[in-house]
Amino acid sequence: MEASRDISVIELRVNYSETDQMGVVYHAWYLVWCDVARTEHLRRTGMTYADLERRGIRLAVGEARVRYRQPAKYDDLIQVRCWVRDLASRRIIFGYAIDDSASGRLLATAETSLMVLDQDFNWNRLPADVAQLLPVAADPVRL
Amino acid sequence: MEASRDISVIELRVNYSETDQMGVVYHAWYLVWCDVARTEHLRRTGMTYADLERRGIRLAVGEARVRYRQPAKYDDLIQVRCWVRDLASRRIIFGYAIDDSASGRLLATAETSLMVLDQDFNWNRLPADVAQLLPVAADPVRL
Amino acid sequence: MEASRDISVIELRVNYSETDQMGVVYHAWYLVWCDVARTEHLRRTGMTYADLERRGIRLAVGEARVRYRQPAKYDDLIQVRCWVRDLASRRIIFGYAIDDSASGRLLATAETSLMVLDQDFNWNRLPADVAQLLPVAADPVRL
Amino acid sequence: MEASRDISVIELRVNYSETDQMGVVYHAWYLVWCDVARTEHLRRTGMTYADLERRGIRLAVGEARVRYRQPAKYDDLIQVRCWVRDLASRRIIFGYAIDDSASGRLLATAETSLMVLDQDFNWNRLPADVAQLLPVAADPVRL
Repeated sequence: MEASRDISVIELRVNYSETDQMGVVYHAWYLVWCDVARTEHLRRTGMTYADLERRGIRLAVGEARVRYRQPAKYDDLIQVRCWVRDLASRRIIFGYAIDDSASGRLLATAETSLMVLDQDFNWNRLPADVAQLLPVAADPVRL
Repeated sequence: MEASRDISVIELRVNYSETDQMGVVYHAWYLVWCDVARTEHLRRTGMTYADLERRGIRLAVGEARVRYRQPAKYDDLIQVRCWVRDLASRRIIFGYAIDDSASGRLLATAETSLMVLDQDFNWNRLPADVAQLLPVAADPVRL
Repeated sequence: MEASRDISVIELRVNYSETDQMGVVYHAWYLVWCDVARTEHLRRTGMTYADLERRGIRLAVGEARVRYRQPAKYDDLIQVRCWVRDLASRRIIFGYAIDDSASGRLLATAETSLMVLDQDFNWNRLPADVAQLLPVAADPVRL
Repeated sequence: MEASRDISVIELRVNYSETDQMGVVYHAWYLVWCDVARTEHLRRTGMTYADLERRGIRLAVGEARVRYRQPAKYDDLIQVRCWVRDLASRRIIFGYAIDDSASGRLLATAETSLMVLDQDFNWNRLPADVAQLLPVAADPVRL
């Protein structure tokens, strides 16, 4: 998968720690992969999540949904595509597609809704300069 | 929260390993708590998930959804209620409510759809004697 | 295993998330179990680790060592014994023995050295009233 | 840090999931980083750990030791050097040095002893052709 202007791609290799005794990746790790992809998607804008925290903004996961289609396996290279599905002043919805690098097969799709909070976990608003850096992309796959 | 006939309850204490630098529980751990609750919900029927695996049946997560309402914090006691939302021959949908033990506040709700597979990850059917042990319960909270 | 005055015991059940594709518990989780045991060992004194943090004291792991003797397996009940091996003003050394509840077999032993720090990660001293609550115990097994 | 013939280097970025409420990386994750580094160290030989498993050889961690010197923090790039410290027919000892990429500071050192087992967790011997691929290196830092 190639990155487009509004969809970023990272590549990860499945580690032994992520497998379970079914011989596939344990389902909770996909949320961590989405987090890694989201962090890199933000970094591409020139503003990291660490920068946001320093400005007193926290993005906290308010909802997460994952659809598991094919199992990821030990030592596989996988790619995670990430994009902004929707953007409002108080929340950002990110979409994710997890693909097997070798075969290009879609392994999973996911969506997380991030709440814009301040340091005391109260609602906050996304600053306009930040919102501008996050173009909304059409879903490249059905979530 | 008390267990009813068809809704089980477990209690867990939040460990330091589950917190992140926001000072709250990292969102992926809720899926692990749901797994622990589901395992105990099955055990209550007299048949464990380990028994199912020995009979060649695997329950693999096909979809997961979590709504985070209030953050869980370090050293808090939390309760996870678990019940069967829906049952078909090839999949079981479990519901979860995660509550703060001290205050009784609802922290999160979740739903996971488990696919009934065989040892080779092909579709399988839930044996009738197993299905009988899993009564469907009405949601005790809105998911 | 029974708790003695100076050695505490907790019981845990191995969750699916802790297994790997070898069909046993992934080795890093033993450190988490030790953390859970240490937290409860402190709680027995009447003073929790959360209380210590509120007093501006942090215990940070400076060294950890685990010996794996027999694998822990999915759904097993395991016990973790914890005790203070040595105590100085700036560090506490905890010992751990991880046993299979059913057979009583020793699965692993561990040791962690905890540094006494302040909120800015500078060296601190353990207050005398805290040190008094932490009697040193002789190792119940060879570490 | 540059890789030498017998010492490999990988680079990782600290994810939010690896931090704890102290604002630093939770200590158990260092063992996972060592596992990632060890996997890549093996891959460099032309033979992956997955290949070894297919040949009926399992490397199971028999002992692990980590010394934490400076905390790793969120979003930091870190490097993990890995090398073979000692090699015998039934166990391989790996050494690790974890460095902060930006400053070059040593964050932690570690050692793990891997037991050579067969698929039934009985002792096995490392095949001569595999042993030849794993040259022993002198420790680049004091462990």
